[in-house]
Amino acid sequence: MKITKLTKGISLKRQLESGNEEQLKVVRQVLADVRAQGDTAIRFYTEKWDGFAPENLRVTQEEIEEGANAIDQQLYADLTEAAQNIRHYHEQQKRSGYRLELANGSWLGQRITALDAVGLYVPGGIAAYPSSVLMNVIPAQVAGVKRIVISSPAGRDGKLPPGVLAAARILGVEEIYKVGGAQAIAGLAYGTETISPVDKITGPGNIFVALAKREVFGEVSIDMIAGPSEIAVLADDTAFADEVAADLLSQAEHDQLACAILVTTSEQLAKKVADEVEKQLTTLPRQEIARASIENFGAIYVAEKMADAIEAVNSLAPEHLEIVTKNAEAVAEQIRHAGGIFIGRYSSEPVGDYFAGTNHILPTNSTARFASGLNVDDFVKKSSIVFYSEKTWAENAPKIARLARMEGLEGHARAVESRGWEKE
Amino acid sequence: MKITKLTKGISLKRQLESGNEEQLKVVRQVLADVRAQGDTAIRFYTEKWDGFAPENLRVTQEEIEEGANAIDQQLYADLTEAAQNIRHYHEQQKRSGYRLELANGSWLGQRITALDAVGLYVPGGIAAYPSSVLMNVIPAQVAGVKRIVISSPAGRDGKLPPGVLAAARILGVEEIYKVGGAQAIAGLAYGTETISPVDKITGPGNIFVALAKREVFGEVSIDMIAGPSEIAVLADDTAFADEVAADLLSQAEHDQLACAILVTTSEQLAKKVADEVEKQLTTLPRQEIARASIENFGAIYVAEKMADAIEAVNSLAPEHLEIVTKNAEAVAEQIRHAGGIFIGRYSSEPVGDYFAGTNHILPTNSTARFASGLNVDDFVKKSSIVFYSEKTWAENAPKIARLARMEGLEGHARAVESRGWEKE
Repeated sequence: MKITKLTKGISLKRQLESGNEEQLKVVRQVLADVRAQGDTAIRFYTEKWDGFAPENLRVTQEEIEEGANAIDQQLYADLTEAAQNIRHYHEQQKRSGYRLELANGSWLGQRITALDAVGLYVPGGIAAYPSSVLMNVIPAQVAGVKRIVISSPAGRDGKLPPGVLAAARILGVEEIYKVGGAQAIAGLAYGTETISPVDKITGPGNIFVALAKREVFGEVSIDMIAGPSEIAVLADDTAFADEVAADLLSQAEHDQLACAILVTTSEQLAKKVADEVEKQLTTLPRQEIARASIENFGAIYVAEKMADAIEAVNSLAPEHLEIVTKNAEAVAEQIRHAGGIFIGRYSSEPVGDYFAGTNHILPTNSTARFASGLNVDDFVKKSSIVFYSEKTWAENAPKIARLARMEGLEGHARAVESRGWEKE
Repeated sequence: MKITKLTKGISLKRQLESGNEEQLKVVRQVLADVRAQGDTAIRFYTEKWDGFAPENLRVTQEEIEEGANAIDQQLYADLTEAAQNIRHYHEQQKRSGYRLELANGSWLGQRITALDAVGLYVPGGIAAYPSSVLMNVIPAQVAGVKRIVISSPAGRDGKLPPGVLAAARILGVEEIYKVGGAQAIAGLAYGTETISPVDKITGPGNIFVALAKREVFGEVSIDMIAGPSEIAVLADDTAFADEVAADLLSQAEHDQLACAILVTTSEQLAKKVADEVEKQLTTLPRQEIARASIENFGAIYVAEKMADAIEAVNSLAPEHLEIVTKNAEAVAEQIRHAGGIFIGRYSSEPVGDYFAGTNHILPTNSTARFASGLNVDDFVKKSSIVFYSEKTWAENAPKIARLARMEGLEGHARAVESRGWEKE
């Protein structure tokens, strides 16, 4: 990894895949066809791209059991414990609305209610991560969403991956469809004979899925379009180079476009980490991907003092940030922008990917400046409530009418003034 | 207005303007030019479309004072009182994060922080509503956003509307630019020599502004793209027809595409309201707009029983909902989807547009199924925090490594396992 002296903020401007016109045309065709023809179109496209269409789009209870039983019992227990931890962390995010009493019996309120139905897209093949099922479904369950649907492409054997089915069984999700790609997004957004429409679609996918989510956005809600993973490690001379290197590689192995950055006040650590990364790369199974990521987007910055290093991290607004320094908790207090913060030597980032309880779906590409990781708030909506008594109305109607007339909206003024006469 | 017997859910599918390719091309050119040339491009496009470019893009403190002093003192006091009410309501929405203690000294946390900087776009001319300045700026201030910027096109006299400047003075907003259109959105998103970039852009605008906001989304955050206004009134035979009619017209006068719907259990009220709407239309200054809205999108539904009426309203998920019935508060409890709920005869909808304290920027076009009105949460972001002690790490590392290996991510497993050896 290249070692650079830190002189100013760090910025992260990867050109991310946003799809070309040909892909968009295909996606629009799929969406239009599913909207018009429902299941028929879903079967048509599934057969076209996946090579076959399952007889029943919906996974049966027996298939869920069979899949869940196919995974190692120790792993099943690990997944169960992870689910408990994730639920415990997210339960703290549950909120109720409020009622604000005003004078004369009037009041204002905010009501918070769960969405009726949400759909989780789970990509096929190697990217079908059981951990992502937990991370998407649990916040929705904690929010109180009644109907939670999973859609995912079946393999050539007509089955979904056992890990995904195990996660679904652990969480009690029973509505699962063997549908992938843009046709899955269309089915979830518009509904078909088999699939009732949902209000929000979450979960990652390939470029066709991402384009389809963008297209249906507005008609339904979607989560963020996640980019490749990033990790920044902020470390001083108390950090161990082999641990820092291993953590950088843990994100680099995700994707050639992933980004791993070390910001440190220790030139010695910088050099050791660079060496360790090289050394550890040689035995990593996903070496090819990790090496491309490290070579293209990996970087080590050496800062003169911790304050400069902290400011550089804030300018980067990384998805994941590890802080391995003296007084790490105090340093963490100075971080304004990061999706997930991992404090101290033992909080290796994968701890949060799988198990600790925080969500692993976090804002990438410097959007932590304004965006948050997936959380319970993403599955609720808020309504405001106004109750004005006659007395409050009488006191304020002239003011409201004046404000409406200032904006040229006479109808608004008249509506407020229409009350309170002796009638009938 | 046409009176229909309610038989099933009500749906609202207006075809909303989403911009054509020619408009998108123009917007992309403006964005690219402002990104490359900054103020020069902003001046070029302002001169091209507004007919002149102000010498100073930034409004001076003297101009703010002059504008604020130009409005009627009573109105200034009304705006000030409205601002206080809005602040009081939104202050209840402030939240802090949490810290969740785990065993063995470990803990998880959620930190909630305000965005650094946000920009409010205020459209020019008649649509420059001072009330919208209050509704956008106050939630951001309550969230703790330090830098709040307004951008709005100047009139031919080189000035901004006095009402907008008065609202800005009341709120203490001092960074205001005389820039409108797509070039304003570009300036706020990318920054220029004069304008520092912001993290989020809110506020309504014409089709060019809306397209520009969509294009910069991802680089910065944006609020929802608001559609034309809607009102639904849910009423029984206790409601007064003239009041219901006046409230329907108050939203119809906004826009030819606005939508006003009455759902009632009283056939007599239905007929009376239809007559009243006709009568009141004849004297309404914005009669032409309101009539087009009522004719195209207005409707009265008569339900057999209140439960059916309530379900119909839930299927509609209206932006504004008035409930004028017996036991209105109990009826309100059964509403699952509505942006803003107004309970009882004296809570005429314009009460919330201007004064009560709730926000008037609410989800339109049935998106209240999954979206919320503008609120303090829109101006904060959340970071998750993990602190694992050595003991917690030691206890859980094998589980985390197993889960990582199940997903084929050996680098993740090794990162977690790299801790805890005797080193140096």
